[in-house]
Amino acid sequence: MTTIADVAARAGVSKATASRALSGSGYVSAETRARVERAAQDLAYVAHSSATNLATGRTQTVGVIMPSVDRWYFAELLSGLQRALVEARLDLVLYNAAEGSADRERMLDHALARRRVDGIIAVCVQPGAHELERLEAARLPLVTVGPFYERSSAISIDDVAAARVATEHLIDLGHEDIAFLGGIPDPDRFGIGDKRRSEGYRVSMTAAGLVERIRTIPASSTIPDAFAAAVDLLADRRHRPTAIVAVCDEAAIGAIIAARRLGIGMPAELSVVGIDDHRYAEMFALTTIRQSPVSQGQEAVRLLRSRMADPGGAAEHVIAPSSLVVRSSTAAPRQV
Amino acid sequence: MTTIADVAARAGVSKATASRALSGSGYVSAETRARVERAAQDLAYVAHSSATNLATGRTQTVGVIMPSVDRWYFAELLSGLQRALVEARLDLVLYNAAEGSADRERMLDHALARRRVDGIIAVCVQPGAHELERLEAARLPLVTVGPFYERSSAISIDDVAAARVATEHLIDLGHEDIAFLGGIPDPDRFGIGDKRRSEGYRVSMTAAGLVERIRTIPASSTIPDAFAAAVDLLADRRHRPTAIVAVCDEAAIGAIIAARRLGIGMPAELSVVGIDDHRYAEMFALTTIRQSPVSQGQEAVRLLRSRMADPGGAAEHVIAPSSLVVRSSTAAPRQV
Repeated sequence: MTTIADVAARAGVSKATASRALSGSGYVSAETRARVERAAQDLAYVAHSSATNLATGRTQTVGVIMPSVDRWYFAELLSGLQRALVEARLDLVLYNAAEGSADRERMLDHALARRRVDGIIAVCVQPGAHELERLEAARLPLVTVGPFYERSSAISIDDVAAARVATEHLIDLGHEDIAFLGGIPDPDRFGIGDKRRSEGYRVSMTAAGLVERIRTIPASSTIPDAFAAAVDLLADRRHRPTAIVAVCDEAAIGAIIAARRLGIGMPAELSVVGIDDHRYAEMFALTTIRQSPVSQGQEAVRLLRSRMADPGGAAEHVIAPSSLVVRSSTAAPRQV
Repeated sequence: MTTIADVAARAGVSKATASRALSGSGYVSAETRARVERAAQDLAYVAHSSATNLATGRTQTVGVIMPSVDRWYFAELLSGLQRALVEARLDLVLYNAAEGSADRERMLDHALARRRVDGIIAVCVQPGAHELERLEAARLPLVTVGPFYERSSAISIDDVAAARVATEHLIDLGHEDIAFLGGIPDPDRFGIGDKRRSEGYRVSMTAAGLVERIRTIPASSTIPDAFAAAVDLLADRRHRPTAIVAVCDEAAIGAIIAARRLGIGMPAELSVVGIDDHRYAEMFALTTIRQSPVSQGQEAVRLLRSRMADPGGAAEHVIAPSSLVVRSSTAAPRQV
């Protein structure tokens, strides 16, 4: 049976260093760590992570709760989280299920009852949700991505401001008949970010004296659903808006595909602006509000590690950057 | 301090049952398990999962190695895996990084050196890869999704057959000038499935006496890359094929967007067929070979659990179903 002493000897370090390198606790240089891990691998040494966990009280594991991974924002965020967690030598346990689903309840029961994680990053958990109470009651370090709560650290772009910048870009171009596309009106299912974005649109429309032009077209934030909703919105020429603010780039792309299908010239007859800077945005020449979910994921891990190091410390709320990127999906409305 | 006896009393079950319910080992009805977990939660009881792990030698955790989550296939597969793992009360630790990347090496070092998982599901690991040797050397139950190896269980559609059905659908419609779009020609980076699909195309073209018409257009399997490659392919009317077999639906959708951009009528001037039945396939009226990555994920978990229960058992290789779905992106070529 290979022991930690064998691994240390092969790697040319002390037993204490080898142990630190393999447990991930305490400082070891990246180079030494790699050497020790390689030695452990060569010798087929199996550290008893469970024994280490009992000794340190840590599982070296972070739980990530996500509603889904099949949208650009979530997939990118997950990559950022993973990258930063690997860096910190923490494993990522994924709890990927829709809020309110039986699977999600089960995952939480499992994770919380057995204390399988050292901390939790919860993405887009609804405020006031029973789930949030459970997470807080578990007294695990908690970071939310999306909504801000008093007692947990959080990161998000300023959704209201992002939608205002998008809307005001269209107003500045001379548009008045601007519709808001996407988001689901049911308050229980309407993402908190989506809701804030629609508020931003309303605020800007109202401020510009366009309160009577406000119209919001519900659709889930996927390309096919937004496409279907946009076909309905755009098909009747008499009630067609000259511009659309989309809740996110997927909704904006759905609208662009709908416009092409209906033979509506863009941007001459229709301007569309999104929020995200999705990987398809450039292909569709989409004007959008850029955000970086990869960076947000990395920042969320930094916030969590700081909570884990100092559980009593103050919660931090970080506003992630966002900025307008103008491409050719927006222009002044055609003179009638 | 709350003990297991308190939890058992509150749930109205024996200590042994409560313990089985919380450790996830041994038989307990779903209803009892839920009651015990709820009692544990009410009493803020924390089972020492690390102690349980030492006792059972199990971590109740499965590692999932994936190159990325930002493509439809991977996101859907991950949902299927997660659903089946929750069902089995196993946690999913995600190792999401490109093959050959430093992050991926690090994840494997970490997972294998510390025995943090009971088994591994490896998605699209290249055959002959050093990585595969490491996975096998770790003697952990292993299931691969994609390539088949002698010593591990595996699941995949028959990629050669899928591409043949797609190609022969076009040949049957009367097409002769059929290009294959997607896949990267570098053998180190060419996905094994992509390679088999291009082989299927070649086999069918050759069998139909069209060997001189074979042309493969490399592009990574994303909509924007395939779009760019398709614009190049289709821009010159003199060398334009009448039909395209795409390596996957994302590549097919890139080709359709390119055709629309160039004003090429579909299907009159161009037919396109994909492989996947992506969530956007219907919106683009795409003829495709349907597969279900969600079911494949669930099946992969079944295969892994059977390896975990009987590590010495024979490896199982499962061919997942696939079938042609005809929509309106394909038709007979226009008579010249």
